[in-house]
Amino acid sequence: MELLRLGPLGHEIPVIRHDGVCFDLRPLTHDIDPNFFAADGIERARAALDAGELEPLAGADELRIGAPLSRPSSIVCVGMNYAAHAREAGAEPPERPVIFFKMPSTIAGPTDPLELPPSATKADWEVELGVVIGARAYRVASAEAGLDYVAGYVLANDLSERRLQIEESGGQWSKGKNLPGFTPLGPWIRPAAEVDPGDLRLRSWINGEVRQDSSTSDLIFSAGEIIHQLSQAMAFEPGDVILTGTPQGVALSGKYPYLADGDVVELELDGLGRHRQVVTVTE
Amino acid sequence: MELLRLGPLGHEIPVIRHDGVCFDLRPLTHDIDPNFFAADGIERARAALDAGELEPLAGADELRIGAPLSRPSSIVCVGMNYAAHAREAGAEPPERPVIFFKMPSTIAGPTDPLELPPSATKADWEVELGVVIGARAYRVASAEAGLDYVAGYVLANDLSERRLQIEESGGQWSKGKNLPGFTPLGPWIRPAAEVDPGDLRLRSWINGEVRQDSSTSDLIFSAGEIIHQLSQAMAFEPGDVILTGTPQGVALSGKYPYLADGDVVELELDGLGRHRQVVTVTE
Repeated sequence: MELLRLGPLGHEIPVIRHDGVCFDLRPLTHDIDPNFFAADGIERARAALDAGELEPLAGADELRIGAPLSRPSSIVCVGMNYAAHAREAGAEPPERPVIFFKMPSTIAGPTDPLELPPSATKADWEVELGVVIGARAYRVASAEAGLDYVAGYVLANDLSERRLQIEESGGQWSKGKNLPGFTPLGPWIRPAAEVDPGDLRLRSWINGEVRQDSSTSDLIFSAGEIIHQLSQAMAFEPGDVILTGTPQGVALSGKYPYLADGDVVELELDGLGRHRQVVTVTE
Repeated sequence: MELLRLGPLGHEIPVIRHDGVCFDLRPLTHDIDPNFFAADGIERARAALDAGELEPLAGADELRIGAPLSRPSSIVCVGMNYAAHAREAGAEPPERPVIFFKMPSTIAGPTDPLELPPSATKADWEVELGVVIGARAYRVASAEAGLDYVAGYVLANDLSERRLQIEESGGQWSKGKNLPGFTPLGPWIRPAAEVDPGDLRLRSWINGEVRQDSSTSDLIFSAGEIIHQLSQAMAFEPGDVILTGTPQGVALSGKYPYLADGDVVELELDGLGRHRQVVTVTE
């Protein structure tokens, strides 16, 4: 079972997909947004599906795939959460989760074009497991309890511009993470009950050549541990997104060139689908 | 003319105040939120007021003062933006704006109690000029043009927990800026047309003793410059809040103790009113 949003940007239709058939969720909710998650939307969607109350969405295959959620109150990202990536970036693996933020204005669909301004000469890909929060999480007692606050999981590209992030940031990474379109999400959210987040293969390719190939089993801080530790410092709200970090194999390593006009970025994560973004540099 | 939100938390009534009288804005909008700013809410509120279409709000003086806006998509904060504060924090003044983020879940009213968990042993005050964005701002050409994107100004306390921000953050400040209640805003938004942001005195007191006393004329990067420079790296949306930085006189300097149970924090900024927060430490 998957949650998707299909249709033109800003006019996406909320959908639940079961056995490959897309059912229109609009009788239940006008969007997949913080209110949806706060009102146990996934459980209600499943119940409505089971009760036969939803109609298939005609022409679903023809529609653009949008990001599978809208307007999270926050997108919190964990940096350096794979030891080999920390080392390729010239850092030691951290003792506690290190965080930065992405703005909701960065969200894009998983196959939307990636439009870069000419100044973005060091744009870099980062395949990541994203966590969607289902209930307010503050001062959660343990990593085990942390998973109780997860509504579902989503594949994310945590795009980064390394000049803004590192050379012109005064050391605060968020500055290089927030160009428009820098957080493609989707194609779907899979409910937490259907995902074991502990050993999922995640990969990225540029122009068909593999760049990253790792597993969430290599995460220093697991999804539950991240929620436990960070919730001592902040309150997550329903619909918030946590990006758990990226494994080794990015351009920052020096092994590969940064993204250029015409490049094709592809990502995949077990059970969470696939992204494809074509880079265009436009004035 | 000021914009306020009055009433219990989560049920605030949007209000426009003119010559000390509060007029109910509910015929015009259900809230002062991103949609309000995106739809030229300030201009429409002023026009409705001028046309005599708004009624005074009965009992306004008895109501809690909430934060004067709700659910911004982002709160972007500039660090080290007063040279003397950078030095008291042990840093050099930055060459470009350095940023971190606060979550919308940190927003509080200007006189709400500040509830700290016992672990927050290094909580610190920061009086700041806040900028409320009125229109999408991306790649704004100059500092002068930057001010065209400002809807209004608001007084903010950028509360910080220095252990989380500095000792346990891996160097990324946002971690110490996001405890619930850590962004008191208000009491009102004053429209940009009525504010010259270039020379406003801003002060803070703890238990009646002055701590900070400076002017926005000491800002390294002015409001317009911040919007110009940061909009090369991110798109601001209507209703977003930018906190412009704090002057010297915080506990991080080592001159004053951190906040403790029972402390009274007061802030004031020319034309933007006054805050008063009583600290309570609760398990």
